[in-house]
Parts: sequence; structure tokens; C-alpha cells
Amino acid sequence: MRLGRGVEWAVHSCTLLAALADDEVLPASGLAEFFDLPPAYLAKHLQSLSAAGLITALRGPTGGYRLRRPPSEITLLEVIEAVEGGLPAFRCTEIRRRGPTAAPADGYPLPCGIARAMWRAEAAWRAELRATTIDDLIHASIPEIDPRQAHSTASWMSNNVRPAVGD
Amino acid sequence: MRLGRGVEWAVHSCTLLAALADDEVLPASGLAEFFDLPPAYLAKHLQSLSAAGLITALRGPTGGYRLRRPPSEITLLEVIEAVEGGLPAFRCTEIRRRGPTAAPADGYPLPCGIARAMWRAEAAWRAELRATTIDDLIHASIPEIDPRQAHSTASWMSNNVRPAVGD
Repeated sequence: MRLGRGVEWAVHSCTLLAALADDEVLPASGLAEFFDLPPAYLAKHLQSLSAAGLITALRGPTGGYRLRRPPSEITLLEVIEAVEGGLPAFRCTEIRRRGPTAAPADGYPLPCGIARAMWRAEAAWRAELRATTIDDLIHASIPEIDPRQAHSTASWMSNNVRPAVGD
Repeated sequence: MRLGRGVEWAVHSCTLLAALADDEVLPASGLAEFFDLPPAYLAKHLQSLSAAGLITALRGPTGGYRLRRPPSEITLLEVIEAVEGGLPAFRCTEIRRRGPTAAPADGYPLPCGIARAMWRAEAAWRAELRATTIDDLIHASIPEIDPRQAHSTASWMSNNVRPAVGD
């Protein structure tokens, strides 16, 4: 079981976008530069975040992205599901209904107990991710950021944010 | 994020092997027939379960598999990790250390807060799977099995189990 790299990219992008003022955006090219990521692949994931309503894209030469909602109202689960989709990790193919001993179709009124156990575990994973917001991640990280990175990030941001025109 | 089909096959196989008496085995071909699964692919997963110490393979013409431990001592997590490996689903590639604002290597004494949040959620998933045994799955399923399937399974088992010779 493996989450795609896009999850890491999308969550980090959201935490960076959370640093913008209300009237600012950051272009996709800036996000790619900041994390040294391939722009085309990152753009695809930013589009997924936008399609899920988590970030807003402003078009045009001064365009860019910003969070659509306050970081305290965007959960880690939402970011992950925007990138990875919301399907369960365990896909029950009902092998209990196959083979020489299977009962007729009406013999299975309940979902398979094995699938239910697997999905209970996924619900626990999802609950934990739903309880963590982008704001929580930022507040946990701020005291841990190296002062040199904090300083260079502030300087980089001042050179790369754009005013949100035509919003 | 998706678990491979082998997880479903392996868990169901363990619940079927749990029905064997102490002196019985079931050949891999029988497990494949019971669930109508491709024998070669299933064999690969059975070998993984065997390598993980969850099932025992007896060789020879009367060979077959059986559980290595009581079903109450085999957890769902063990079966999943035998098939899928134990690596975390979220692989942190440390993108916080990349790009123009990164601090020198000594600026990151702690794991990334985003990775820690992701791994907390995985720990919740794993805890739930560790708390569920093959025995739990069987006890939850028994009252739900259609009587027709229970009957045909008992008959199929009596034709397909083999005495554990040379153990």
C-alpha cells in the first residue's frame, strides 16, 4: 500500500499557500520552484486541489493559487482525497461468492466480514486525518523551522507572491 | 492508495485454513479452487504467508498448507504485512529540504511534521488491524454464513483436506 508522491507535494503546497495574505496568490511555477518539483506534475496535483474546492486559481499573467478556505477549515483528509481519490484502499471483490461452494446470490445479505474489518481500520486512519487541519500542521511546524530557513522563506515569499488581481 | 488483491486472497485463505484439524493440511490447488483464484498468483501470496511464519507448508504428494499458529494468535495486520510489506504508505521524500530556501542539513533535527501527522494516521490503521485476529473474523462470520454455503463447504472440505504426513 502506497500513497503517491502527490500527497506530500499537495500538503506542503497547502501549508505554503496558508502563509499568504488574503489579497495574495502564489503562481504554480513558484510552488514548483520552492520545493524543487517538476512543474507539470505539480500542476496536475494543484488542479486536483482546485477541483476539490481546496484552493482557488486566479488566471492571467498575475494569476496564481491561494487557499479557498481558512487553513483551520481544510483537513489533511480532504487534501489526500483530492489527490488520491476517496475510494477505499481495500477493494472487496467478493471472493466468498466464488468457487464450488458458493451460495446463490441471495445468500449474502451483508458485506463480507473481512471487508468490514478492513474498512473499520481505514475509518480509523481517516478519522485521524480528518482531525488534523492545515492550520494544525503549521502550528506544529513553526517552532521547529530552522531560523535560516524561516529567514530565506520570508525573503523568497516577498519576491514571489503576487497581488490577487481580478478576484 | 490501494491494497493489492493478494490481501483479500490471503485473509480468506487463512480463515479457510483455520477450519482444519491439527493433523490436516489443504493443498494450494484446493485453496485456489475454493475461491476460484488463479493458482500461480495465489501460490505467490501463500509463499509470502509462509515466509512470514503465518502458515506452514508440508511438501510432497500429500503436502499442503495449514496455519502455523492458532487463529487467535494471527492478526489481520500480520497477514496484510506478509503480503504487502511493512513499509509506511506515506513515504516522506523531505521536500522541505529542497529548493532555494532550504537550510543546511543540520537544520532538520526532527522528522517533518507533515510526515509525522501522516504516520500517526497509519498507526491508527495499524492498531485496528493488530486488534483483529483471524479468530475474530471467523467468529464474526460464522453466524452470517448462508446454510447452503456452510453445507457445501463442509462437503468440499471433507473431499479436499489431506492428512498432514511427515510433519
